[in-house]
Amino acid sequence: MTFEAMWRELLPVGRSATSGGYHRQPWTSAESELRAWFAEAALARGLELETDAMGNQVGWWRPVAPTGLPAVLTGSHLDSVLDGGAFDGPLGVVSALAALDVLRDRGFEPARAIGVSVFTEEEGSRFGLACLGSRLVTGATSWEAVSRRQDRDGVYLGDAVSASGLDPSGDLLSLVDVGCFVELHVEQGRDLVDRDVAVGVASQIWPHGRYRFDFTGEANHAGTTRMEDRRDPMLTYAMTVLAANKQARLVDQRATFGRLEVTPNGTNAVPSRVTAWLDARCSTDDALAELVETISRQGLDRASRDGTSLTVTAESVSSSVTFDLDLARDLAAIGDWPIIATQAGHDAGILSAAGIPTAMLFVRNPTGVSHSPAESAEMADCLAGVEALADTLAKLTS
Amino acid sequence: MTFEAMWRELLPVGRSATSGGYHRQPWTSAESELRAWFAEAALARGLELETDAMGNQVGWWRPVAPTGLPAVLTGSHLDSVLDGGAFDGPLGVVSALAALDVLRDRGFEPARAIGVSVFTEEEGSRFGLACLGSRLVTGATSWEAVSRRQDRDGVYLGDAVSASGLDPSGDLLSLVDVGCFVELHVEQGRDLVDRDVAVGVASQIWPHGRYRFDFTGEANHAGTTRMEDRRDPMLTYAMTVLAANKQARLVDQRATFGRLEVTPNGTNAVPSRVTAWLDARCSTDDALAELVETISRQGLDRASRDGTSLTVTAESVSSSVTFDLDLARDLAAIGDWPIIATQAGHDAGILSAAGIPTAMLFVRNPTGVSHSPAESAEMADCLAGVEALADTLAKLTS
Repeated sequence: MTFEAMWRELLPVGRSATSGGYHRQPWTSAESELRAWFAEAALARGLELETDAMGNQVGWWRPVAPTGLPAVLTGSHLDSVLDGGAFDGPLGVVSALAALDVLRDRGFEPARAIGVSVFTEEEGSRFGLACLGSRLVTGATSWEAVSRRQDRDGVYLGDAVSASGLDPSGDLLSLVDVGCFVELHVEQGRDLVDRDVAVGVASQIWPHGRYRFDFTGEANHAGTTRMEDRRDPMLTYAMTVLAANKQARLVDQRATFGRLEVTPNGTNAVPSRVTAWLDARCSTDDALAELVETISRQGLDRASRDGTSLTVTAESVSSSVTFDLDLARDLAAIGDWPIIATQAGHDAGILSAAGIPTAMLFVRNPTGVSHSPAESAEMADCLAGVEALADTLAKLTS
Repeated sequence: MTFEAMWRELLPVGRSATSGGYHRQPWTSAESELRAWFAEAALARGLELETDAMGNQVGWWRPVAPTGLPAVLTGSHLDSVLDGGAFDGPLGVVSALAALDVLRDRGFEPARAIGVSVFTEEEGSRFGLACLGSRLVTGATSWEAVSRRQDRDGVYLGDAVSASGLDPSGDLLSLVDVGCFVELHVEQGRDLVDRDVAVGVASQIWPHGRYRFDFTGEANHAGTTRMEDRRDPMLTYAMTVLAANKQARLVDQRATFGRLEVTPNGTNAVPSRVTAWLDARCSTDDALAELVETISRQGLDRASRDGTSLTVTAESVSSSVTFDLDLARDLAAIGDWPIIATQAGHDAGILSAAGIPTAMLFVRNPTGVSHSPAESAEMADCLAGVEALADTLAKLTS
């Protein structure tokens, strides 16, 4: 089955009829459908399928004669952010399957096993911890540390996993035989557009953190309470949003408030509480710490003027990931591809931090738009990505 | 049954175990329980009970010898805002029943019918239109105009009413025989505290409007999208919140953003849309129009800088209500009570606008806090309110 045919099969899964965006949250029916789709695609290629306790999957192409050399893993994820695009994740999985087809068409026989992998809950859109599947597999987090997490409806992680037909007490994938990981991904910025090339190689992932800001005030009547008698946490929140934007611009970094819960969220009530999540990314760990510190301090200053309170909780912080530079240079030499940084977290960052030599290939995104129904890539660029990945795998497993 | 005993019966209904606040939304099980409670209380007093198609209720105390004089209606509502207090609404209903008991204990025989009324969805907390019950009864709105309204879960008004065992196609209460309406209510500000009196009489309700602000931008990746490439509607919203607060303070009026919906509401996504509701109240209709105009203009200015768009929709606007001044003076004379304005909407405003001579009695609120679990009133002040209402009804029906 061609790249285009696989792509068409995935297009309807979890797609919103109103926005055209994707809702492929982990351990939902949409993700179960994607997991079944991947199993079928792997089995149709004669790959040896592994599915672990959390739903992480690998399809293995074993060499005819075992060599004892460590394997090469390639793949990405199939889950999406809320109302996300079609490419973020699935492009890497479909490209990996298509790259295997290319290699077989060439009559290539790998000297090492090649695994096509799908890690679950990469976006953290349901349980708030990005790269949950790869973090568990690599030991970056433990089941004990995450099992009491709840989604927005109060469902516990273990119950969600069980409800989708998996056994969370079972075994996780083992990566002991993996010597290298390559993740192909749609670019989420416009670097390749500016450079006028279809494919690039990653150098680094910026440090990234998610921080919960709890603004607390006093619920009150929106009509009768004099403005000067209020303790309105919405005001403190609003000033903090603007401060975050301004600070990030000043230092050329990123800060976003995109998620919010308001209590009681009534039109005629001054809120008692606003809970908001800051997503912050910077070029260095120190810059990230300083940015969050500055935003928090400005929020606290305003809270003291509003008679509200603010507590800031780091929910997840990922340090800078520098990919294996020798590997990046070797791959870049294949097609004279540029080496570029990214501000987005990926499973590749988790595997790299776990000591597995890791590389990423990016495919050009004409608008740079991502995490949006409008995310896109040209088919010609996608096919160039498949060829690039096939060349990469050939080089790594010859 | 004493005031205190009735009060104790109502305390647990619809109360949140976590916040201690009330969730008595219309056509829910909590409101059904309150409607049944009222029916029982009316029947226990030998009142003639009417319940209409929407769940509005009146218990009638008819004079022994019919006089042909128009009736006096008194009462309030039993529904609450989301996570509201115990007093806003129920105090007027329980006080009305207790005032009847006081009059009977005094051996009083009214020369006109006295009706104790409960209007439904006074807060507009479920279908977004405050005083829905009294608006329908007085013809201020029509079933055709409201029947397609939906609550936050997408339930249509008619389906909600039917699901609670009522028939929305049935008859509404008739107020043709009502010559006067008196609503007792907990004060929602601190005017009576400042004046050191337990009871006051209303002069006026400020004009009041609810406006939906739709801020639209472009969903995008919170990490990879450069700050200068964004069209983030959260920024426009945040500036508008601060502008609303500042403008309302400058002109000594009220403006509140307390309700918000964010799409897609994901931590790592720049939102595509923020929908927020402005609650605005001013001392005159002109001041209200000017305040909303100024806030909208500042929001639009910022939208043009953020690359976002803003549309403002007036969802409901109530003009200033000036209560019957002669009636207010007559009642104030009973106990030398002060005559004060309020910024809160009430069914009394709707009945007054419909041409029914209307008055309100306020009971002191020690903190001024309302629409909050912390809303309170002293029992001694509540009992003073019952006596004041009994004296008022005696004066109006002698």
